[in-house]
Amino acid sequence: MTRHLSPRPLNSDDFAAFGQVIALRDQPDRLINQGLCGRHHDLADLDIGQGRAGISLFEAQPRPLPLRLDMVERHPLGSQAFLPVSTAGWLVIVAPDRGGVPGRPLVFRADAETGVNIGRNVWHGVLCPLHDRGLFAVVDRIGAEPNLEEFWFDDPWIVEASRD
Amino acid sequence: MTRHLSPRPLNSDDFAAFGQVIALRDQPDRLINQGLCGRHHDLADLDIGQGRAGISLFEAQPRPLPLRLDMVERHPLGSQAFLPVSTAGWLVIVAPDRGGVPGRPLVFRADAETGVNIGRNVWHGVLCPLHDRGLFAVVDRIGAEPNLEEFWFDDPWIVEASRD
Repeated sequence: MTRHLSPRPLNSDDFAAFGQVIALRDQPDRLINQGLCGRHHDLADLDIGQGRAGISLFEAQPRPLPLRLDMVERHPLGSQAFLPVSTAGWLVIVAPDRGGVPGRPLVFRADAETGVNIGRNVWHGVLCPLHDRGLFAVVDRIGAEPNLEEFWFDDPWIVEASRD
Repeated sequence: MTRHLSPRPLNSDDFAAFGQVIALRDQPDRLINQGLCGRHHDLADLDIGQGRAGISLFEAQPRPLPLRLDMVERHPLGSQAFLPVSTAGWLVIVAPDRGGVPGRPLVFRADAETGVNIGRNVWHGVLCPLHDRGLFAVVDRIGAEPNLEEFWFDDPWIVEASRD
């Protein structure tokens, strides 16, 4: 049996249970560089415990819709922020935890200038650039300890093109 | 008296004294997401001491060439990484320290997919997107302590369009 999901627009309120949306505020928190640059300050709750944060680049192949979602994963030791460097739009897939396993996933549609920070131990899908190869800067915990838990669905989910 | 500078291409070797270039390696360090995503791992030496790293967004107006460079700044308490989210190309301006004041600046030309991490206490110019407004994610130290030192040049530098 396949089950179906539809993308919805990404916004901070709907995403709050899973992490933070990293996007420009209506106004910058302060102007720097003699007024020529707005700083939108401290938009993510990096949560890496006693570990070390690092910056990596992820280069992902496009995942056109409809998309088969077989698996979600989570990182027990730290949050993971995805910052778009080059993408034509992408999906952020997360799922609530229901007693140690993922509940029904939520699929958010993000634009080329919007990032997210996914909270520690939050179930999420893999990187899904939609129309073209995607390049993302990732800020997450660097360390040798095992920090990946995968959950494979018995029945896969199909993410359909959005209807809105 | 004005003094002139010319941009050069950004590369890791020339930039090594000032920080790290954050760009794809020839090959990813590992493939993830069932082979559909390459992870280029841990590309920046984040150096924020006992502080907390955070993610901010900087939205900067374009600075067409020739550009007048009056000032450089440095942050004694931490490194500062700039990750391009949306830019048509940008300049990275740094300067060696010569006994507490900046020496002759170096101007590096970076493309839309290349970031840098500027080392703690390294003199650098303000954000310079060239042809259009630039949006950058910035990973730096979040804290209330003073963390900015500016140096204003007696004679400004003029950054010319590159000849190469």
